[in-house]
Amino acid sequence: MTGLRVHGGRIDLAATLYPDAPTPWLDLSTGINPVAWRSDPLPSVDLTSLPSPAAIAALEAAAAAVFGTDAARVVALPGSEIGLRLLASLDLPHPRRVVTPSYATHAAVFTDTITVPRSAIDTIEDGTLLLANPNNPDGLLDRPERLIAIARAGAWLIVDEAFVDLHPAHSVVPHLQASDRVIVFRSFGKTFGLPGVRLGFMIAPPEQAAAVRERLGSWPVSACAVAYGLAAYRDTRWIAATRLASTDRAARLDAMLARHGLHARGACPLFRLVETDDATALFDRLAHAGILTRTFDHAPRWLRIGLPRDDTAFERLDRALAHG
Amino acid sequence: MTGLRVHGGRIDLAATLYPDAPTPWLDLSTGINPVAWRSDPLPSVDLTSLPSPAAIAALEAAAAAVFGTDAARVVALPGSEIGLRLLASLDLPHPRRVVTPSYATHAAVFTDTITVPRSAIDTIEDGTLLLANPNNPDGLLDRPERLIAIARAGAWLIVDEAFVDLHPAHSVVPHLQASDRVIVFRSFGKTFGLPGVRLGFMIAPPEQAAAVRERLGSWPVSACAVAYGLAAYRDTRWIAATRLASTDRAARLDAMLARHGLHARGACPLFRLVETDDATALFDRLAHAGILTRTFDHAPRWLRIGLPRDDTAFERLDRALAHG
Repeated sequence: MTGLRVHGGRIDLAATLYPDAPTPWLDLSTGINPVAWRSDPLPSVDLTSLPSPAAIAALEAAAAAVFGTDAARVVALPGSEIGLRLLASLDLPHPRRVVTPSYATHAAVFTDTITVPRSAIDTIEDGTLLLANPNNPDGLLDRPERLIAIARAGAWLIVDEAFVDLHPAHSVVPHLQASDRVIVFRSFGKTFGLPGVRLGFMIAPPEQAAAVRERLGSWPVSACAVAYGLAAYRDTRWIAATRLASTDRAARLDAMLARHGLHARGACPLFRLVETDDATALFDRLAHAGILTRTFDHAPRWLRIGLPRDDTAFERLDRALAHG
Repeated sequence: MTGLRVHGGRIDLAATLYPDAPTPWLDLSTGINPVAWRSDPLPSVDLTSLPSPAAIAALEAAAAAVFGTDAARVVALPGSEIGLRLLASLDLPHPRRVVTPSYATHAAVFTDTITVPRSAIDTIEDGTLLLANPNNPDGLLDRPERLIAIARAGAWLIVDEAFVDLHPAHSVVPHLQASDRVIVFRSFGKTFGLPGVRLGFMIAPPEQAAAVRERLGSWPVSACAVAYGLAAYRDTRWIAATRLASTDRAARLDAMLARHGLHARGACPLFRLVETDDATALFDRLAHAGILTRTFDHAPRWLRIGLPRDDTAFERLDRALAHG
């Protein structure tokens, strides 16, 4: 089961480990929106041309409008994962502190990481601090004021806002001033349910933005990412409706889990964290029912459950939880 | 005109600079195959899922079979441009020599580059040497034996084989032994005419391959890149037919240029380099006819002309060259 603890979404591996589970598998192992953005007709994608600088600038401007900042601070990335890993090349000050528990990639960004608990960040006044808001997997959500105060006290602050689109009031981005030493990452695939596109963004001061642009070269993202990203970020009606609908679905998931004696933690509507004495047994039971959830090496009592997409998925999870 | 000298493919900029040119523009400013790979039906792309490790491994295996090496040495990249720029993080030995003239990105890979002419590479026995084979823009093509001899004399050799797919006998890849300190880059978009996909590969010894995999994270390429790359690299009939057809078209371009008193240099069938006293005037004349070619800041006598895709494109270029 080790492979299932590294990242979510490993249905192929789950099917090998649970060959008798009913198919198709219900994948609740990720924090990806199960209701993907789409349009009719779908965006037209010209794979025979390189994305033009003007097209990439338009994509960054559309994303910047959603994020609440200037397009000049926004750098398109082929996935926020690659952006996080490029932090190592930015020569950020020591010590490099990473809040734990959090997204597994964070601990791998720097070679000389010091881990700190979220409760200990308010007194940090130097070096670099990397955290996620809302956090993954516990869904812990901080007000932007708390985070910006750390940057203004002297540290370089890196905020992974991969899941913040559904909580726009909690993003630090609209509050940033030119002098703030803050770098923010955003993810396209999670909010819009299209992780196969590979698109993310860094919002950074000019020097760091220029360094990452240089590293990525002239064509940082695909024609598909430009076409889908541009159309989806401009679809403000879909974004607003998705904020409401996913909050409703998360409340429905909380109520269902409570009926089965499980208490759900976290404020991120795309996933919930359950803490239980027998998380491994619960994972195993759900897997035998063809439902993939997510366990964690470092926290054997935790189980993260992604948002079911529709009534069918809710009912399947309900039945599997009932057969205890 | 400066913007047109940085990279090819800037039709948007050309249209602004030559507003009276007939449209649509004929883009001969790149070395991208004008006859793109396609299939019927097109590969199915699932943007709602992350590419699985198995799917990425299958893509690397299909590419490795075309390159003539083991899949374990092949790392999928979101474009060879990003791979080249990641070389800076590999701690390759000094001095870092880059052959010039070549692809503009090469000179920007390392911060401490020493440029060397291609004629001077055979005596190099230390440090790192980066070159392209076939070279861009002059199309100069070396036998793999010459290049491998340099690596075996003691230098780390980086070969950008972005244009070698149409000359498979000239690739160093099938000749590499486990102990060779050689890193090779391949490009998907140029050969297959699909640069908007953003897909490339690094072929490297295990340590360097692992370092780049680590930098890129778990999802280095998009679902679109996996689907198109897998299908296209397995289409060995298309690849073989394209090798023949592009060589024929390049010979037709050579003959046409010769009729207009222009001597074409280079062995790469996707572009030809013309050396002429009035390259800028020729560029300008073609641009007024709606045909974009490529000039070079560092070599004012050079004009690079991409391969016309069909009779219509050949005839349009012929007419524009005739009106001298």
